[in-house]
Amino acid sequence: MKTLKGIVEYPNMGVEYISKCIGSRLNLHGSIYKIRKMSGFAFVLLRTKRDIIQCIYGEDFSNFSLDMLKEECCINLSADVIKEERSRTGWELRMIDIEILSEPLAESPIVINNKLVDTSLENLLDYRPITLRNEKERAIFKLQEGICRGFRKFLSEQGFTEIHSPKIVSSGAEGGANIFHLNYFGEDAYLAQSPQFYKQMMVGVFERVYEIAPVFRAEKHDTSRHLNEYISVDFEMGYIESFEDVMNMEVAMLKYVLEILKENYSHELELLKVTLPSITSIPSIKFIEAKELISRKYKRTIRDYDDFEPEEEKLLTEIFKKEYSSDFVFVTHYPRSKRPFYAMEDPSNPDETLSFDLLFRGLEITTGGQRIHNYKEQIQKMKRLNMNIELFESYLMIHKYGMPPHGGLGLGLERFTSKLLNQDNVRLATLFPRDINRVTP
Amino acid sequence: MKTLKGIVEYPNMGVEYISKCIGSRLNLHGSIYKIRKMSGFAFVLLRTKRDIIQCIYGEDFSNFSLDMLKEECCINLSADVIKEERSRTGWELRMIDIEILSEPLAESPIVINNKLVDTSLENLLDYRPITLRNEKERAIFKLQEGICRGFRKFLSEQGFTEIHSPKIVSSGAEGGANIFHLNYFGEDAYLAQSPQFYKQMMVGVFERVYEIAPVFRAEKHDTSRHLNEYISVDFEMGYIESFEDVMNMEVAMLKYVLEILKENYSHELELLKVTLPSITSIPSIKFIEAKELISRKYKRTIRDYDDFEPEEEKLLTEIFKKEYSSDFVFVTHYPRSKRPFYAMEDPSNPDETLSFDLLFRGLEITTGGQRIHNYKEQIQKMKRLNMNIELFESYLMIHKYGMPPHGGLGLGLERFTSKLLNQDNVRLATLFPRDINRVTP
Repeated sequence: MKTLKGIVEYPNMGVEYISKCIGSRLNLHGSIYKIRKMSGFAFVLLRTKRDIIQCIYGEDFSNFSLDMLKEECCINLSADVIKEERSRTGWELRMIDIEILSEPLAESPIVINNKLVDTSLENLLDYRPITLRNEKERAIFKLQEGICRGFRKFLSEQGFTEIHSPKIVSSGAEGGANIFHLNYFGEDAYLAQSPQFYKQMMVGVFERVYEIAPVFRAEKHDTSRHLNEYISVDFEMGYIESFEDVMNMEVAMLKYVLEILKENYSHELELLKVTLPSITSIPSIKFIEAKELISRKYKRTIRDYDDFEPEEEKLLTEIFKKEYSSDFVFVTHYPRSKRPFYAMEDPSNPDETLSFDLLFRGLEITTGGQRIHNYKEQIQKMKRLNMNIELFESYLMIHKYGMPPHGGLGLGLERFTSKLLNQDNVRLATLFPRDINRVTP
Repeated sequence: MKTLKGIVEYPNMGVEYISKCIGSRLNLHGSIYKIRKMSGFAFVLLRTKRDIIQCIYGEDFSNFSLDMLKEECCINLSADVIKEERSRTGWELRMIDIEILSEPLAESPIVINNKLVDTSLENLLDYRPITLRNEKERAIFKLQEGICRGFRKFLSEQGFTEIHSPKIVSSGAEGGANIFHLNYFGEDAYLAQSPQFYKQMMVGVFERVYEIAPVFRAEKHDTSRHLNEYISVDFEMGYIESFEDVMNMEVAMLKYVLEILKENYSHELELLKVTLPSITSIPSIKFIEAKELISRKYKRTIRDYDDFEPEEEKLLTEIFKKEYSSDFVFVTHYPRSKRPFYAMEDPSNPDETLSFDLLFRGLEITTGGQRIHNYKEQIQKMKRLNMNIELFESYLMIHKYGMPPHGGLGLGLERFTSKLLNQDNVRLATLFPRDINRVTP
C-alpha cells in the first residue's frame, strides 16, 4: 500500500520568473515551438503554459546535438539564465541538457508557429487541436478564461450563488422551433435554450444566482454571429426596483471584468494588440427612439417596427461611438411581440416590455429584463398567447407560492470575447464551434 | 437618453452584519419564512440570501398589523436592532415598517419551513422550486457552490486554464451504448459523455486545463448513485512523470476544498451537522490487491476479477476507514478490459492500466489516469479493439503532431457533495436531477 500526500509542485516557468533567476540553472519543460538555425548557434522557441520562451542553442555550451530537436517535440530542459543586456528581457537562456519526452510522428500540415495561422477559417477550425497551439490563437482563450474569472469573481462578491441547472429539459424557455430534440428513454426531451426557468426558480431560494454554462439553439442561421451551442453567462436577481437595477449590475460587472483583464492579462492583450474599451457609464435608449434615430441619421425607411435589422444594430452603435464615445449601448423597451412570455410589460405602455439588449460594437451581446412575478398576471399573459399552461406547471409554482420582483440577463461569452478582440466572426472566439455545418472536431 | 453608471449597492443583510448595527434602524428585505404568534407579539422569520433572521413583531412598536403578513410574502422591512442579552445573538430585531412586495396566491402544498421537509423523495423533487426554499435544503447547494469555488481557485492557482468544450459531439469519448443521440440538422450527433478528447487536445495548448460542466450518460441504471446528467469536474495535465502526479494533484485539491469550506461555509456546515473529513494523505491500493483484501477480510469469493461490485466498494472503504482512519482510498491499476482505449497500459504488465479511481465513503467519485500520448501506440491499441480509426481523426491529430505525457481525472460533483453530507442518494445533492424516470422540473 502507498499513500499520496498531495504534495504538488507548481512549475513556474514564465518569463517573469526566469528574470529573477539570472545566474542560475533552471529546469523547464515545454514544446519546441520554432527553431531558427544560425551559424554555430540557434534560437529555439519553447512553448510553455503561457509564454513562448526564447532559448539559445550553442555548439559551445549545449551538451546535445541540435538535430535531436524538431518542432512539437516535448522536452525537459536544463538551461542557464545568463545576463545579456542586448536582449529585450535582459537575459538569455542557454540550453544545456535536454530530455526528449515525445516526438511528433509527422509535421503539421498547417504552419502554426508564424505570427498568424495563415489559412482559411475552415482549415483553422478543422485543425483546431493543432492551430490552437499558435501563440495568438491560444491567447484568445486565455483572455476568455480571464473574462469568465472576472464575471464569477464579481458576481460572487455581489452575493450571487452559483447554480447548475439541467441541460436536458422537458420544455423550452425561449419558445419557438429553435430547439434540439432528444429521445430520452423513449420520452420527448429537449436541450435547454437557456437556464431561464431554473434561474428564476433559484431566485426564490438564494435571491441572487448565476450560471456560466452551455446553451443550445437549433437555429438554421449560417452567419458570422450565430453558434448552435454557446456559453451563456446568466444571472438573475430578486428584490429589484426596476429592470435598470439589472442593467446597472451589468455595467458594474463589465467594468470589473475589464479591470481584471488589465491587471492579469496584459501579456495576451499586447500579443493580440487589444485596446480595452473604457466604461464609465453606458448610454441607454428606448427601442422606438433608436429606430427613429437611425432612420433620421442615415435616411433609412423603417421597415420593421418590431425588431432591428442587423445593419441597424451596427449603425446604432456607430452613432453612439461617434457622439458619446461609447462602445456599448443599451436598447430598452422592446415591443412585447418580440419578447418571451415571461417578460414584464411596462405598466405605462403594455405594448412595450421592461427589457433591454446590450449592443457592443454592432452586435447584441446581452438580452435581459424584468420578469413577471405575479401568478395571475403570468397566467393571463400565457392565455393571451394561447400557451398550454399545464406544460409549465413546475415553473409556475414559483409565481403561485410567492416570488419577489426580479430580473436578470444572459450574455453570450463568445460574442463578448469576439467583439472585445475586434474579430469579424464569433467562431474565432470559440474553442470548438458548433454551427449548422460543423459538429467536429 | 439615459446613462447607466453601474453603481450597485450590495445589500448586506447577514446575521453578522446586523450584529454590528446594534442601536440602528436597518432596511432589510426577504421572504417571510415562518410566523410564530405569541400573545401580544410574534416571531417572524425572514429568509434572506443566506440566513434565516428572526424578527420580532410587537403590537407596541410595529406600525402595521400582523395580519398583513403571510408566509412566502416578499417584503421590504425597516427594523430596529435592539440589544437583548437573553437572545442567542445578543440582539433582537424589531419590525417597525413593512412594504409588501408580493404575496403568494396559495399556500405551498408541502410544508417547507420546518427543520426538514418531511415528505418522500419523489415529492421533494417534484416540488423542487419550493422545497429548495427550506433552510437545510438550500444549504446543501450553498455548500456545493463552495466546493466548486474551491476547485476552481485551487486549479487556477496551480496554473490550469479553464476551458469550455462542446457538449454536442460527433462521437463518444467513453464508448459503449450509454450515449444520448441527437438529430443535428439531419446529421447524427451525440451528447458528450465527458470532455475527455477536448481536454487532452487542450493539454497540447495550455499544458494544464480544467472544466466544470455537465456531462450526459444514457445509462438505464435506476440506483441511488446514478444520474443521467451530472456536473463533472475535469482536469488534465501535461508533463507528468507518472499517473501518481494526477493523484497527488487530486489530494491537494481535496485538501484545499475542505479548507475553503471550513473557512467560508461554517454556517451551512453547522446547519447540516457536517463534520468535514480530514485529509493528511490518501492511501492507495492496487485493484487486484483490493479484491483479495476484501475477499480475505470478509470471506467473500471473488466472482469478477475485472471490476468491483458496488458492495465491494463499500467494504473496501470500510476497511480503510477502520484501519487507516481514511474516508478516502485510491484504487489503482484497473484491468485494461475495464478502461477506455486511451488509457495507458502499465509497461511492466500490459493487462493493467496506469489508472485509478478514488472511493469516498463507499462510492467511486473519481476516475482518472495517464493517457496514451504516442500515436503508434494509440493506433495499435485501437486496431486491437477493432475501432474505426477514421472516426477519431481529429482526436488523433494531437498524438500525430506531438503530445507530452499527460493524464487527468473527472470527479462527479454531486457524488462528492452527497458523500460529504453523508446522504444516501445522489439526487439529494442535485438541484434538478435527471434520471431514467425524471426530466422535470
